Amino acid sequence: MTIGDEILFGQITDTNTQWIGTELTNVGIRATRKTSVGDNAEDILAALGEALARVDLLIITGGLGPTKDDITKHTLCKFFDTELEINEDALQLISDFFNRRGRPMTELNRQQAALPKNCTYLQNDWGTAPGMWFEIDGKIVVSLPGVPFEMKNLMTQRVLPRLLTFFKPPIIRHKVIRTIGIGESTLAEMIEFWEDSLPQHIRLAYLPHFGQVRLRLTATGDDENQLASELAYETERIMPVIKKWVYGYDHDEMETVVGKLLMTQHATLSTAESCTGGFVAHKLTSIPGASRYFTGSVVAYDNDVKMNTLGVPMADLLDYGAVSEQTVSTMAEGVRKLMHTTYGIATSGVAGPDGGSPEKPVGTIWIACASPSRTTTRMLTLTKHRAVNIELTATYVLDLLMKCILEEVAQ
Amino acid sequence: MTIGDEILFGQITDTNTQWIGTELTNVGIRATRKTSVGDNAEDILAALGEALARVDLLIITGGLGPTKDDITKHTLCKFFDTELEINEDALQLISDFFNRRGRPMTELNRQQAALPKNCTYLQNDWGTAPGMWFEIDGKIVVSLPGVPFEMKNLMTQRVLPRLLTFFKPPIIRHKVIRTIGIGESTLAEMIEFWEDSLPQHIRLAYLPHFGQVRLRLTATGDDENQLASELAYETERIMPVIKKWVYGYDHDEMETVVGKLLMTQHATLSTAESCTGGFVAHKLTSIPGASRYFTGSVVAYDNDVKMNTLGVPMADLLDYGAVSEQTVSTMAEGVRKLMHTTYGIATSGVAGPDGGSPEKPVGTIWIACASPSRTTTRMLTLTKHRAVNIELTATYVLDLLMKCILEEVAQ
Repeated sequence: MTIGDEILFGQITDTNTQWIGTELTNVGIRATRKTSVGDNAEDILAALGEALARVDLLIITGGLGPTKDDITKHTLCKFFDTELEINEDALQLISDFFNRRGRPMTELNRQQAALPKNCTYLQNDWGTAPGMWFEIDGKIVVSLPGVPFEMKNLMTQRVLPRLLTFFKPPIIRHKVIRTIGIGESTLAEMIEFWEDSLPQHIRLAYLPHFGQVRLRLTATGDDENQLASELAYETERIMPVIKKWVYGYDHDEMETVVGKLLMTQHATLSTAESCTGGFVAHKLTSIPGASRYFTGSVVAYDNDVKMNTLGVPMADLLDYGAVSEQTVSTMAEGVRKLMHTTYGIATSGVAGPDGGSPEKPVGTIWIACASPSRTTTRMLTLTKHRAVNIELTATYVLDLLMKCILEEVAQ
Repeated sequence: MTIGDEILFGQITDTNTQWIGTELTNVGIRATRKTSVGDNAEDILAALGEALARVDLLIITGGLGPTKDDITKHTLCKFFDTELEINEDALQLISDFFNRRGRPMTELNRQQAALPKNCTYLQNDWGTAPGMWFEIDGKIVVSLPGVPFEMKNLMTQRVLPRLLTFFKPPIIRHKVIRTIGIGESTLAEMIEFWEDSLPQHIRLAYLPHFGQVRLRLTATGDDENQLASELAYETERIMPVIKKWVYGYDHDEMETVVGKLLMTQHATLSTAESCTGGFVAHKLTSIPGASRYFTGSVVAYDNDVKMNTLGVPMADLLDYGAVSEQTVSTMAEGVRKLMHTTYGIATSGVAGPDGGSPEKPVGTIWIACASPSRTTTRMLTLTKHRAVNIELTATYVLDLLMKCILEEVAQ
């Protein structure tokens, strides 16, 4: 449960609950509900009641600051029918905190050491808001500050170890298979036999994302090694059917996979971008160390740049247009030559919303990959939406590049 | 309410609810609770019941995909005690969708057109999962796909307009003043007198964002025109104090403002990017019609590209290094010359996390703007975080460009 108007009103991105969800999942505690309420005692009390009626563990973040609108502690007192009292250890820590910074400790700060009588004090090594641990009828309520690094430190150092001794959770393991170039439903029908044959304790989820579909297997049990080998077995079992579309596993991003592939081949890459306007280069260079295989890009938005810098023949632009197989091929070959790289990839299309024509409507995009032995092209028919077209084109041109590299290696 | 195990397990960041929270706040609807549940009928049913007991409006996202783990529709049927039936409009749209892409429509896709009998169909212009609108005892339940751009389009085009006619929230008007180059607290002290003098029904919020601070005035009342003129008056009143740092209003993005400025001057722009790796070009080309003033970019990640394509003297690279005033100046002048543009801007720095040195630690970044009459440079000392440094550098180099254009015009 997160507490704070700023979350409900959309003024901040709540990253705490995602982090907590991941940590709980990793230790085999299954999160079943996430709730955000405002800085309002009634709403908090109601949410506390509903939550404890449902679950064995409730983790609360936020509302522990020194200011008036932070009411979590008082509300917890009301909920547990107890009152606040100064915790000496907490007080000591807070005054040390201000001494170290040579700042005066105000009464507001002193009050941060006041905790509900029935809680166990959890020391916050990074700030002045203490953590609190409550036990009630075999259930646990934990209250933590909302400041991410304070919360994370408290979770890792104090909360998770206690939880694992209090509950004996089942073990949960995940395996994510990342595919590109196949639709969610086509994929689903193709692997239905497999999905239906999965054992009860292994669940499958489809996570579609900009032309990609991620298959997430979630296995629950009590033997870590067995779960790992079961996930490996199931992955191996379906791989022959979907191999063609799989580009990575778990946290592999496409640009990371491409980078590794290029490095293992001691190969280099450059890009020539028209409709993607530099987004492909941006994706590639968002990976630390990209300079080991990525030399650069020519964003050829204007046809003069396509001609003068990339060497696209004016005749091609006149005869076939900028959005054509001929132009995108010479763009890819041009940048490959200009930057002396093993591979050159190029994009040219009508990103939209304007600029479409009957023959080439918005969403018509050509991509190309020039490799040492050949130049491969593909035409894409995408959406009416500029941002989406740019994202999708970047994904597909990296996919094309991967396939070209593998072909090249196979020779 | 968001539906999906991947949210509870922390596998994706939920940005939908933040966006929805902002939109609702903007139209005067107060969000009181945010709930996430897994792909589990029981939990969803429980959450639906709890929510409708509490609120007049419930917006649900997620769980509308074609696959087995997407159970929102069936669960809604159970909740409303009705059943699914094919909606012909939805079916038409879905088959058109697949025809346009030349992909076969599977039975799973066809089933996406099956909607609960008691719902009003909301057309999804961007995908195959329809939106649904339910009315029950004067309360509204809306169910939307979880894919952010589909959800946002449905909210803006279909849901918000209906909500405003169904509920009659008080009128809320916003005025955003966008500043760059001044810190939040300095700004706050400077305009405190003004903030304190604002009428009760006009609230001020500070929204810092990557080197920018946005001042958002929110006026609540029942007379739209009066609110508008009050906001205009307050904006005018503070402008003399902050003019120097203001680059735009409301939804003006920096790249939009730069674009307009270039067009009014009949001027053109090209970029030479090292540490930003194409992100500046991407920002510029994310604006429709950018081709009218943006010719292109050279992403010079490799020093050879800096020398061969941009004409940076090898001597400069040897004497001063790639991250230096000399190099970034010649990069800006080089691309301006290469692409025959009025202005050329350049970036070169240590984005991190690696590559820092005692003299040039991570976050040391040089930017330059070459204009017809002079070349202006600036050194930035930013953070340790690659993504943040790339974002900030793009913002600051566009700020530098704006100032150079205004200088040039003033001559």
